[in-house]
Amino acid sequence: MLTDTIVAVATAIGQSSVGIVRISGPKAFQIAGEIFRSPKSTSFVEFKANTINYGYIVDGDKVIDEVLLSIFKAPKSYTGEDVVEVNCHGGRIPIKKTMELILKKGARLAEPGEFTKRAFLNGRIDLSQAEAIMDLISAKTELSLDVATSHVLGKLSVKVQEINELIISSLAYIEATIDYPDEVFEEGEILKIKNNLLEGVKKLEKLLITSNAGKILREGIKTTIVGKPNVGKSSLLNRLLNSQRAIVTDIPGTTRDILEEQISIRGIPMILVDTAGIRETEDVVEKIGVERSKKAIEESDLILFVLDGSRSWDIYDQQILELLQRKNVIVLLNKRDLKQVLTKEEVKKITGYQEVIEISVNEDINLDKLEEAIIKTYELKDLISRSDEVLISNIRHEKSLEAAKFNLEDAIKNIENGLPLDIIAIDLRDAWENLGKVTGQTLNKSIIDEIFSRFCLGK
Amino acid sequence: MLTDTIVAVATAIGQSSVGIVRISGPKAFQIAGEIFRSPKSTSFVEFKANTINYGYIVDGDKVIDEVLLSIFKAPKSYTGEDVVEVNCHGGRIPIKKTMELILKKGARLAEPGEFTKRAFLNGRIDLSQAEAIMDLISAKTELSLDVATSHVLGKLSVKVQEINELIISSLAYIEATIDYPDEVFEEGEILKIKNNLLEGVKKLEKLLITSNAGKILREGIKTTIVGKPNVGKSSLLNRLLNSQRAIVTDIPGTTRDILEEQISIRGIPMILVDTAGIRETEDVVEKIGVERSKKAIEESDLILFVLDGSRSWDIYDQQILELLQRKNVIVLLNKRDLKQVLTKEEVKKITGYQEVIEISVNEDINLDKLEEAIIKTYELKDLISRSDEVLISNIRHEKSLEAAKFNLEDAIKNIENGLPLDIIAIDLRDAWENLGKVTGQTLNKSIIDEIFSRFCLGK
Repeated sequence: MLTDTIVAVATAIGQSSVGIVRISGPKAFQIAGEIFRSPKSTSFVEFKANTINYGYIVDGDKVIDEVLLSIFKAPKSYTGEDVVEVNCHGGRIPIKKTMELILKKGARLAEPGEFTKRAFLNGRIDLSQAEAIMDLISAKTELSLDVATSHVLGKLSVKVQEINELIISSLAYIEATIDYPDEVFEEGEILKIKNNLLEGVKKLEKLLITSNAGKILREGIKTTIVGKPNVGKSSLLNRLLNSQRAIVTDIPGTTRDILEEQISIRGIPMILVDTAGIRETEDVVEKIGVERSKKAIEESDLILFVLDGSRSWDIYDQQILELLQRKNVIVLLNKRDLKQVLTKEEVKKITGYQEVIEISVNEDINLDKLEEAIIKTYELKDLISRSDEVLISNIRHEKSLEAAKFNLEDAIKNIENGLPLDIIAIDLRDAWENLGKVTGQTLNKSIIDEIFSRFCLGK
Repeated sequence: MLTDTIVAVATAIGQSSVGIVRISGPKAFQIAGEIFRSPKSTSFVEFKANTINYGYIVDGDKVIDEVLLSIFKAPKSYTGEDVVEVNCHGGRIPIKKTMELILKKGARLAEPGEFTKRAFLNGRIDLSQAEAIMDLISAKTELSLDVATSHVLGKLSVKVQEINELIISSLAYIEATIDYPDEVFEEGEILKIKNNLLEGVKKLEKLLITSNAGKILREGIKTTIVGKPNVGKSSLLNRLLNSQRAIVTDIPGTTRDILEEQISIRGIPMILVDTAGIRETEDVVEKIGVERSKKAIEESDLILFVLDGSRSWDIYDQQILELLQRKNVIVLLNKRDLKQVLTKEEVKKITGYQEVIEISVNEDINLDKLEEAIIKTYELKDLISRSDEVLISNIRHEKSLEAAKFNLEDAIKNIENGLPLDIIAIDLRDAWENLGKVTGQTLNKSIIDEIFSRFCLGK
């Protein structure tokens, strides 16, 4: 039983119109009653669920701030507990004072993700929905948002539940048969079970096939631009960032988070190693050496290998090429606007990469082809239209679903080989347990704690 | 008549639990009805004022985000108009999508301060209250917050109104007398008017005497540390900042705004020129020259002039001293822990400053005396206890009140000199107009626009 009352700031900190302080737990209403005064001096107990009320936060007789107070009664609240949200003015000091007052009245500071964790523990949402809430907040593009929203709405949970029901009904029959060994073993029943499990495998495969695209939408394609000096790496980077900046500064009322260099290629998030990082690796072959560039390349999902079409292939290009093994690489033959010394065919032959695009960053030639190549490399062609489908975007979900699929395949194999029903039951129980990890049903406490600890404060 | 509907993000931008999008105007409910769906599919019109409702933001059939929607009906709202607030998830993309949808449905992006401006234009608050809302948001310390809160609550407005009533009743009598010249001019009445005006002057003086402290609490004491190299300026700066940092990082759920080096000395805000700036001016005498240090000193309210007690007074100290004329200066004789070569008495004699404090930054000696000296320099002794009084913190208010005071003093003088009543009426009308500038009653549109343009977006 959760007996303590928690509090945290739910909005970003910064000078703004409004900052929300959120309280959840059995003492939420009592605390709010002690610190809130309505100008009509209505006593607190008269407030109704799902109302938002104008008044003041007071410390004794002293008015701290003019606020709006929202009331949510258990179980109809975010956490499933009694919840009070205080909309303070958005400065550092009004929020600080209000927080301090609430802590003094007996709440304790919430841990990161603790509100959502309570929602999960109180059965209001399952784990996949909880995780999707964080994905929604950190969504990098509109397509990423679509994936997260569909999970928040429980669309993944529904799919998992469908598969789970196939397993449970099979398991129920098998266990009944095991418990009553005198029962006649029906050939038709075991065929029905096998068909059930085959259908489960098919459904799992259909989900798993989306995981590559899903993960890309959630996490973005980590991209590094490599190339010897003066091939146009900086110009390309700036070109990619600037076109994006134009879009981002266009967003009403928002400012750009300059900490990460993140761009969107037709809704697909790309993470460009932050400018400082890239600038450092620019002259990487001479200055920092092979080890440094190796590391940058290893950590990337995609390499944009820039060559200079106006100069011939040389030892520096060759050195970089040798670092690129086993990576997704798009070769960009830049400076198409100048006299060409190095041809596309030569590059294909030397590098072995078939994806070679002649571009000119300066004259803006063929940069759309670069976008198409990225979409093609990641087989994302359909993604843009089918984003309302359920995509597996979380590696933890992917692993659990994969494990469940193997369990079902084992079960099917064991049925075909005529193994005893209790062996098959073990496979099915394992599949059930692995599926339950997606929704959190079968996860142990420490793993659940670890997942929520990665959430942001106030959520 | 304000016929358009405005929208803006009301919270700070950043990955957080909640971000609020605020809509105000005649189409607020219509727009909300088009983009909000309740899971119970209650139609929008059924929503009641002052309720907060769970549901989804939808673009056609597509769910954008899971939200809470607050409803405020005119005139009982922040702006006095119909207001809807959407509590989205706090990421950049959910907020962006929701904003875009609302703009598409016919709202326009609000200008900075436009919500508060509408509250003012709709007569819900006066100008001094509107300005105090911004002060509250940007309050630097808890004492600053107290001053702002008392203004938001309209305490200044009440004081101004009291004075205004004295003027208006006097003016009413005088104008009646002017209008009916046959009326007998009563000696007693004119004495009563004079006493009214004297009382008005007294009340204005009582307010104006607080303006020094009030402005300090609102704006902070801009402070520069000067001294020749190796006297311990950096150590002092770090000491002041670090002790503060310890306090600030202690605030639950908030992060420090590293853009300004702002500390609180017993609730009094001090703005230390940001570290980079101070570091540049450190070796100012040698490197950047006299002009640069002159400028830094000129822009400061307070100079902490650091000397090295273990070395004798020299030409460099002398050069700096000569830059300090007509400034609030506290002289700090540092390195008290070392053998003393330069004494406190010598320093007093050479510099002419009586506020000389022997300190040791390294051994933490007498730094509390520095705090006391700051409080003393600004005559802030009582401030800390009397912060629930109405303090004039805004220079615009101060100027208006001062002007009104001069008008009243002129009127009194003219009464004493037996000038005609219509001359006195002019003084009183001027006083009324100047007082009205505080509450915004007598300000013209362009000045009002200018004041609100300094507000933050979404307020």
